[in-house]
Amino acid sequence: MSEQIGVGILGATGTVGQRFIQLLETHPLFYVKAIGASSRSAGKEYHEAVNWKMTTLIPDSVAKMIVHPCEPEYFEGCKVIFSGLDSSVAGETELAFLEAEFAVFSNAKNHRMNPLVPLIVPIVNPEHFDLIKQQRVEFKKSKGFLVTNANCSTTGLVSALKPLQDAFGPLSKVVVTTMQAISGAGYPGVPSLDILGNVVPYISGEEEKMEEEAAKILGTFSTNHIVDAPLAVSASCNRVAVIDGHTESVFVEFARKPAPSLEEITKVFENYVSEAQKLNCYSAPNKCVVVCKQPDRPQPRLDALLEDGHGVLVGGIRKCNIFDFKFTLLVHNTILGAAGSAIMNAEIAVKKGLV
Amino acid sequence: MSEQIGVGILGATGTVGQRFIQLLETHPLFYVKAIGASSRSAGKEYHEAVNWKMTTLIPDSVAKMIVHPCEPEYFEGCKVIFSGLDSSVAGETELAFLEAEFAVFSNAKNHRMNPLVPLIVPIVNPEHFDLIKQQRVEFKKSKGFLVTNANCSTTGLVSALKPLQDAFGPLSKVVVTTMQAISGAGYPGVPSLDILGNVVPYISGEEEKMEEEAAKILGTFSTNHIVDAPLAVSASCNRVAVIDGHTESVFVEFARKPAPSLEEITKVFENYVSEAQKLNCYSAPNKCVVVCKQPDRPQPRLDALLEDGHGVLVGGIRKCNIFDFKFTLLVHNTILGAAGSAIMNAEIAVKKGLV
Amino acid sequence: MSEQIGVGILGATGTVGQRFIQLLETHPLFYVKAIGASSRSAGKEYHEAVNWKMTTLIPDSVAKMIVHPCEPEYFEGCKVIFSGLDSSVAGETELAFLEAEFAVFSNAKNHRMNPLVPLIVPIVNPEHFDLIKQQRVEFKKSKGFLVTNANCSTTGLVSALKPLQDAFGPLSKVVVTTMQAISGAGYPGVPSLDILGNVVPYISGEEEKMEEEAAKILGTFSTNHIVDAPLAVSASCNRVAVIDGHTESVFVEFARKPAPSLEEITKVFENYVSEAQKLNCYSAPNKCVVVCKQPDRPQPRLDALLEDGHGVLVGGIRKCNIFDFKFTLLVHNTILGAAGSAIMNAEIAVKKGLV
Amino acid sequence: MSEQIGVGILGATGTVGQRFIQLLETHPLFYVKAIGASSRSAGKEYHEAVNWKMTTLIPDSVAKMIVHPCEPEYFEGCKVIFSGLDSSVAGETELAFLEAEFAVFSNAKNHRMNPLVPLIVPIVNPEHFDLIKQQRVEFKKSKGFLVTNANCSTTGLVSALKPLQDAFGPLSKVVVTTMQAISGAGYPGVPSLDILGNVVPYISGEEEKMEEEAAKILGTFSTNHIVDAPLAVSASCNRVAVIDGHTESVFVEFARKPAPSLEEITKVFENYVSEAQKLNCYSAPNKCVVVCKQPDRPQPRLDALLEDGHGVLVGGIRKCNIFDFKFTLLVHNTILGAAGSAIMNAEIAVKKGLV
Repeated sequence: MSEQIGVGILGATGTVGQRFIQLLETHPLFYVKAIGASSRSAGKEYHEAVNWKMTTLIPDSVAKMIVHPCEPEYFEGCKVIFSGLDSSVAGETELAFLEAEFAVFSNAKNHRMNPLVPLIVPIVNPEHFDLIKQQRVEFKKSKGFLVTNANCSTTGLVSALKPLQDAFGPLSKVVVTTMQAISGAGYPGVPSLDILGNVVPYISGEEEKMEEEAAKILGTFSTNHIVDAPLAVSASCNRVAVIDGHTESVFVEFARKPAPSLEEITKVFENYVSEAQKLNCYSAPNKCVVVCKQPDRPQPRLDALLEDGHGVLVGGIRKCNIFDFKFTLLVHNTILGAAGSAIMNAEIAVKKGLV
Repeated sequence: MSEQIGVGILGATGTVGQRFIQLLETHPLFYVKAIGASSRSAGKEYHEAVNWKMTTLIPDSVAKMIVHPCEPEYFEGCKVIFSGLDSSVAGETELAFLEAEFAVFSNAKNHRMNPLVPLIVPIVNPEHFDLIKQQRVEFKKSKGFLVTNANCSTTGLVSALKPLQDAFGPLSKVVVTTMQAISGAGYPGVPSLDILGNVVPYISGEEEKMEEEAAKILGTFSTNHIVDAPLAVSASCNRVAVIDGHTESVFVEFARKPAPSLEEITKVFENYVSEAQKLNCYSAPNKCVVVCKQPDRPQPRLDALLEDGHGVLVGGIRKCNIFDFKFTLLVHNTILGAAGSAIMNAEIAVKKGLV
Repeated sequence: MSEQIGVGILGATGTVGQRFIQLLETHPLFYVKAIGASSRSAGKEYHEAVNWKMTTLIPDSVAKMIVHPCEPEYFEGCKVIFSGLDSSVAGETELAFLEAEFAVFSNAKNHRMNPLVPLIVPIVNPEHFDLIKQQRVEFKKSKGFLVTNANCSTTGLVSALKPLQDAFGPLSKVVVTTMQAISGAGYPGVPSLDILGNVVPYISGEEEKMEEEAAKILGTFSTNHIVDAPLAVSASCNRVAVIDGHTESVFVEFARKPAPSLEEITKVFENYVSEAQKLNCYSAPNKCVVVCKQPDRPQPRLDALLEDGHGVLVGGIRKCNIFDFKFTLLVHNTILGAAGSAIMNAEIAVKKGLV
Repeated sequence: MSEQIGVGILGATGTVGQRFIQLLETHPLFYVKAIGASSRSAGKEYHEAVNWKMTTLIPDSVAKMIVHPCEPEYFEGCKVIFSGLDSSVAGETELAFLEAEFAVFSNAKNHRMNPLVPLIVPIVNPEHFDLIKQQRVEFKKSKGFLVTNANCSTTGLVSALKPLQDAFGPLSKVVVTTMQAISGAGYPGVPSLDILGNVVPYISGEEEKMEEEAAKILGTFSTNHIVDAPLAVSASCNRVAVIDGHTESVFVEFARKPAPSLEEITKVFENYVSEAQKLNCYSAPNKCVVVCKQPDRPQPRLDALLEDGHGVLVGGIRKCNIFDFKFTLLVHNTILGAAGSAIMNAEIAVKKGLV
């Protein structure tokens, strides 16, 4: 992999920004060239500006970088921009970078449902990169583009549904209850008095995101737009006392009758190979879907980092009294569910010649 | 309430047994007259035999009682037997007490699905006490009988479903994902390495219990037997890092079309009055179903002890994309979900003249 | 207890303020007459202004009260003012209420070390109320006065040391390591990402408070001022994942040689009777110091609410290789360690005719 | 590093045994050749016998190995034996392997205080390997020997004290309060009901171990025995809700007066180089003692895996009112505090030509 590509990170001091910097520390294709954050941090060295909460040290190459304002002029020479910005500012800031012809990979929710913006989970629907051509036409861009990755809970869900849809045709109904990790709320995020020894049965806007995003991601690119998949999703989202890793109880019905058997489903999960793998992307997992054999797995504390957090784990696949079957899935919410998806999306874009 | 009734407690040193003793400390109708446990404890004073884990002190009246073997001869004079026995021994032991003409109120799973044994959640179906007449005929008993209360998760579920069924007719489909407290597994129970910062997506036998028991409890007594309610339940059961209080995400469909509105449902929850309340049972809650107004409630740490743990809390009542509506419920798993149900069942039995 | 006394609560929406309101709900001597909070809350009804986090409901008598600004004019008719204000505003606000001739009982740190302000732990040194005479002279007040209670960790420590000092003379050296509950930091307080599965070995300013306050509280009133006790305290303060209850590992050396035996120490703890008890204060615990017999107690989750949170628990009393002996203590940090102390101090002041 | 050395692991299914297998997966010098466990596991393949609780997968090379009884005949060809046995069986079993001329590296407590057995923390006192000569004489062995590593809490403590002793001469007094992780108690170990939201102020036998072992480890080898260091240690041991990493609040007094300054102490920590590092041992940390600059560090969740868990972290170095200074330390209790020490000890033994 010849020369490394310089990347810029927006929202570098936040939880997702820190994960970007951690994941890129030893990345063979990308290196952190510039970092941006709010005006409160701008002008400081990164190690002074950040309240670093990763379990590894701040990479030496980034610790003494000056934090810039999140404006395109400070990111010259960055071919790729990763945005870990908060949704309160991501909307306009990302458009400014797109306007300035950067390739922007955003983790924010703002542009996800825009019909011109691909919403891509790298192990699910990288074919949606085909939408960029149309995006550039409409936004009058030659090099720049904007791609988003999905909400963390949605990411886990569609990563498990995609192999099934590929093999057995459309899913008609999906009921899902999430048990989400506190890292998904950033820092300071969830007050400890709210979650220690507790469950909070509400995450603002989360159910709507899961219900909307899934149909788009599982949809089909057709000529110049995405056609939503015909599935209905109903979600119930809960916060639990877990650091990293969203667990989801999923109940699924297929459109086709009879539904496939549990053996067929299991085999399809295990044999699924994503385009990210076929393209030999650096961050692509060895297995996109790891099927757990023990009935009490996956568990977030033990399993979230398998496949370096870039796959999903599925367990407890069993018959359902009401739908066709049910299972538990686990996704690392700040790796595949956030920064890791954005990075793998950028790897795919490079492979596809878009960057 | 004239004279107090002496009661015996089987499995007195276990988690449920301790809760029986705590709840009965100031009970106006019952007093602890004899306690039984395994041969390891028998012969010791209670305070020496028990590894007491309640947050109140061992009642003085029980601390120095001698623990007996769980055999009828040691429980003479007890008009009521509460069984907090483990299922490995509950089956035979409880039958022995029934055989000896005791009124047995069991928390164990062993006899719950026996067609001759009422499975009663006191704020849901005390009319099933009518089955005792038939039970006595078949078992050839004059005074003795055996009643069970439900699994803790089932208890929460049916307590929320009953008011709906009463008001709007049968429910057809219920999907439920539980997030269950560690106290449900007793002591030592769940190893801390399994649950701290974790979710365990499996509780042995729990989903089956929820799926079977609900239809019986919501069923109708007819002449001499219980006719199951015609609802299908599909459950996914998880353990979370909570001390007391099972949280359940519930998705519900009514048989009738169109379904009632959210306003109608909310009103029915709030206005529900159980027979336990009408009978003025001491342990009956002021409200059987408390509807939480804030979208992020109920929460187990904050709300499990409302109504002294004898009601259920319901919150986040909202439309569902697939079924009619969804909501979150919370039940105190060792009070209404275990010892508290058994005690309230006994109060009802006294009111009904069965004891 | 004839007529109830109306009290005002400053900082009523905060964690300590909520505890004041909860503890006063059924208080026979005091009732909440007026409540104050920041300008953000002023003008709202309490239930709208507060993010209520107690495990009991907002008392009906307070829920619809209008929250006032923390200015004396809004608290007319309140004979007692309880301040749960944050230290950023407590200093001046409390002086304004003193100036307006209110009897102010403050939980804030601002005036604790002022030589004219009694720093009183009600089960330790209510004789320091004698300082009020001098305070009134210097502040030119006739009815008003200002009393503070101690830091939560200090409160636990001195409650255990006082009986020893009374019985065996001065302590010379005390080394203490605390493991403090998250409720001590208020709400939102400690971010969950900082404390779940973690220990934070630092609480800003806490060690200094323990080291300074202990000597004043254990000191002697002499004519018109407090003479500090001659003990050296060295503290190490840690935050742990506990909701309520500070645990402290204490190592103690007496001035006198030989030191008392463990039996003598235990007896002194058990027999200690505080002035609050002798005065028959409503909130006074039955036992100020509860000695735990099991070697693994006290534990915050199980024991913090014994004596309704108004006493301290001591356990593991044993010989020390370096000092005379060591033990573990537990104090409920938001009851005896905060609001409960202020209320009991006010009860004492009433008994002493100061209010 | 030419040919790999085959090692045997006793107690391979336990928590420490699992850590041995995980740490050896990619070890350049050692490979797992045989594994032993109790008769309950013997005869099974490892993946069937073990309840694997590491966050990485069972190494392929071990998963299908047959578990043997812990008897020397099954370990032929193993030049090194690592014992993670429980103390209930470690005593005799380890002697049997010594008798059979194996080089035994034990994590068990049984032989630690035997004057003929070196008690070695690899980054502290590898010079105590000199005692093996005398051990072989007394036990009449030519190749075999027995070395133990220290208790996990002791390991952290002496790792911080050794650099100070080397630089400034003997320490006279050390008071230490530990906050220990649950993994130290193995699996199932600490029941979740005991530790979730709680502190347990007692760990059986732990304080005694810390007080005895420290003096031996910090002692001096002289001719044919170890002379204890002249320090007094007083420990208070607590269990907290942390997965991995023991935190210790330490108060220290030097024999020499005046004591060194905080700057001198900090410098000595940072510049300390252990013999394990000088010998270029594979597992030796880059830094044995990492000094944290932020006042609220080290923290177990964030920092326990720095230096791959083979160093200690020290923070909050500050003056003490009673002793010379105090600080917080953190040690990974199942790496440097257990299996990691045993492995590094074996690496040192190889370098010294003892294996």
